[in-house]
Amino acid sequence: MNPALLLVISGPSGVGKGTICRELQKLDPTIYLSVSVTTRPPREGEKEGKDYYFVSEDRFRELMEQGELLEWARVYDYFYGTPRTAVNKARAAGRDVLLEIDVQGGLKVRENCPDSILLFVLPPSLEDLSIRLKRRGTESSDSIDSRLRWAESELPYYKQYDYVVVNDTVAEAVAKVSAIRIAEKCRPQNQKLVWPIT
Amino acid sequence: MNPALLLVISGPSGVGKGTICRELQKLDPTIYLSVSVTTRPPREGEKEGKDYYFVSEDRFRELMEQGELLEWARVYDYFYGTPRTAVNKARAAGRDVLLEIDVQGGLKVRENCPDSILLFVLPPSLEDLSIRLKRRGTESSDSIDSRLRWAESELPYYKQYDYVVVNDTVAEAVAKVSAIRIAEKCRPQNQKLVWPIT
Repeated sequence: MNPALLLVISGPSGVGKGTICRELQKLDPTIYLSVSVTTRPPREGEKEGKDYYFVSEDRFRELMEQGELLEWARVYDYFYGTPRTAVNKARAAGRDVLLEIDVQGGLKVRENCPDSILLFVLPPSLEDLSIRLKRRGTESSDSIDSRLRWAESELPYYKQYDYVVVNDTVAEAVAKVSAIRIAEKCRPQNQKLVWPIT
Repeated sequence: MNPALLLVISGPSGVGKGTICRELQKLDPTIYLSVSVTTRPPREGEKEGKDYYFVSEDRFRELMEQGELLEWARVYDYFYGTPRTAVNKARAAGRDVLLEIDVQGGLKVRENCPDSILLFVLPPSLEDLSIRLKRRGTESSDSIDSRLRWAESELPYYKQYDYVVVNDTVAEAVAKVSAIRIAEKCRPQNQKLVWPIT
């Protein structure tokens, strides 16, 4: 069995990271989508254990102290983190893991897992991002402005990422991430060669 | 226009490098297949300027001294080299370049062009390679033995390459190289981002 990949997907809020991840999993159900722990209250329609594990700040701190979080970050007023054990279990079972997290989290994951692969999803333009956020309809216009400002501050980090995927259309973005997955599986260190047969 | 890639394809003699390159070019005729200069006499059916530029040893030495060779190497009794200008011209015109060369040449290209991408094609097994060489029917059995010994000495270099492509079937190998091409075009340094628009 070849080693399973840990793919980190970052990019500004509203860029379509979640859609891309879900489409990838539809194409290959062996993909494990990491579920984050957060202290943020659920948005309408979000489900415990599917979208997030929703926890109190006290519980979050406990997980941190137990070393149970592969990365964690504070975004706006809330904490987000990635449960280490679930990711490791999935990879040990040969499942590629997709981690959808913000830039701060992504760079921390690389620190903790040097074999992780960092993908930065970019919108075709800032206008496009603004339209997407408004269309989502879950944010107040103050919150949209704040997210756009945040997006601008996150953008320069794309240069620290391994790959940049411009989300012109979901289909194209998904095709690019799929190609990156195939390519990374061709890395010498990601192959268990039966060759040489010695 | 995004920067064009320089893809170096190496691997033991008979592994199917040439077939893979030709299939890739069929899929995308903008790909430029680099034509090497060699002092080896033409095999039956090989065409000047298509398979190789066949030159005398004196002319080869001249090209070397003029700095016209991106890499060169001696394999068996013959010299092989890559004309620098043709490769640069193709890339400047936005065409990805495929360079089919031996391991020595590949590593020299990386020295000269740090942005080159090195792919190592491996056969599924050593037996398979032997069968392929015999099927080709252009080699004496002494030459086949010598090529197999050479193959064994080349194999350890796959670890110095960026990617390893096992040639189980031509279609799969071509799909993998295509994916590597798409992935490499998603590298931050290989994208001219219109974003940020500032």
